[in-house]
Amino acid sequence: MTTLYQLPLDASSRFVRLVLAEYGQAVHLEQEKIWERRREFLALNPAASVPVLKTDDDLVVVGPNPIVGYLTEVHEDRGAPHMPTDVAARAEVRRLVDWALVLMEHDVTAVLVHEKAEKRGIPANLGGGPPDTSAMRIARDNLDWHLDYIGHVLASRDWLAGERMTLADLAFAAALSSLDYLGEVSWADRSVAKLWYARVKSRPSFAPLLEERVSGVIPPAHYDDPDF
Amino acid sequence: MTTLYQLPLDASSRFVRLVLAEYGQAVHLEQEKIWERRREFLALNPAASVPVLKTDDDLVVVGPNPIVGYLTEVHEDRGAPHMPTDVAARAEVRRLVDWALVLMEHDVTAVLVHEKAEKRGIPANLGGGPPDTSAMRIARDNLDWHLDYIGHVLASRDWLAGERMTLADLAFAAALSSLDYLGEVSWADRSVAKLWYARVKSRPSFAPLLEERVSGVIPPAHYDDPDF
Repeated sequence: MTTLYQLPLDASSRFVRLVLAEYGQAVHLEQEKIWERRREFLALNPAASVPVLKTDDDLVVVGPNPIVGYLTEVHEDRGAPHMPTDVAARAEVRRLVDWALVLMEHDVTAVLVHEKAEKRGIPANLGGGPPDTSAMRIARDNLDWHLDYIGHVLASRDWLAGERMTLADLAFAAALSSLDYLGEVSWADRSVAKLWYARVKSRPSFAPLLEERVSGVIPPAHYDDPDF
Repeated sequence: MTTLYQLPLDASSRFVRLVLAEYGQAVHLEQEKIWERRREFLALNPAASVPVLKTDDDLVVVGPNPIVGYLTEVHEDRGAPHMPTDVAARAEVRRLVDWALVLMEHDVTAVLVHEKAEKRGIPANLGGGPPDTSAMRIARDNLDWHLDYIGHVLASRDWLAGERMTLADLAFAAALSSLDYLGEVSWADRSVAKLWYARVKSRPSFAPLLEERVSGVIPPAHYDDPDF
């Protein structure tokens, strides 16, 4: 079976898990503690990042864009779901996926996931320790702006990239689900974004993510409620 | 004519310029000082980043992956150069493009370009000022590791992603050309990487980049010499 090396709160790992589930492809999950720099894993990906996909034929695909590009191309003959065929629409999907998984990842998600959750499980000599509250404060300020932007986009569209659900919705929902697990999203004053997130989160592909728990970190009560 | 909003030492802007030239597509270049947060530009890209491509039909494509994905798809019927057709080979090209333009960009290129060149032209109230030498030192250490990796890959391949030149070579050469402009690449002990870079840099698509000069920053003598 295909194996996905991943981390439970990593936004890009969640994105790939959602896409695999949407494409109906079963996968074996391996939690990869990248800070341990395991030799066998570095042989797969010298950059020591997740997600990494390894297929039955030992094809190794590294990183969210390559993995999802690969899955989309493999499933294209069945009409790959969630990627439009029009070139302009595809460009818009890619812009938003990069926004969620590069820009927002760098400004917000990676910081809060690392400081609030991952550092607890990392030995001090490998970079663990108490959270950097100054970095967290900046990330939280940044999150406000990203949530504003999601609301701005959804003011004129049913889904982030247009009239249909696409990979862009899965990428942003993946990142927000990690932040929501950590109790970092103030949904109260975000009604448009909240309704959109509730629609994505209600999909069967989302259920396994919402059921999963990370050791030592308890999500807020609404986290796994599709009608929150 | 198609317009590219870009910055002269931004690696992703250089990558897109190389791909446009390789695909034989003329483009009008606009230097976009993103720190000025020009209102008309924010309307094109609220993330305020370059590169942004605007076509004759007013289609706006934001970011290196979306732009190059778009160009590749538009030129695919003519057999898009530099992107293999095999799905596994395409995944490897995408891995390396992301390595050059996300990972190395974050660890090295963006830091050195910003600290050594851009900050000179940015007013103090918009983030300009003297270079952060501590950030530069870390970026230089990181660069050594990335150059080691390029050498490692080229030990078993003629080009970065295999037996042919691909977008992966253009992405890494774009990033290295920015660093080389700044005199940051010690080629002396990098013979394999140097020979590969000389091959890419000799292509006609590279000439306009090598001829261009950035105000106030003088490149080393070997910078524009294809047989350096």
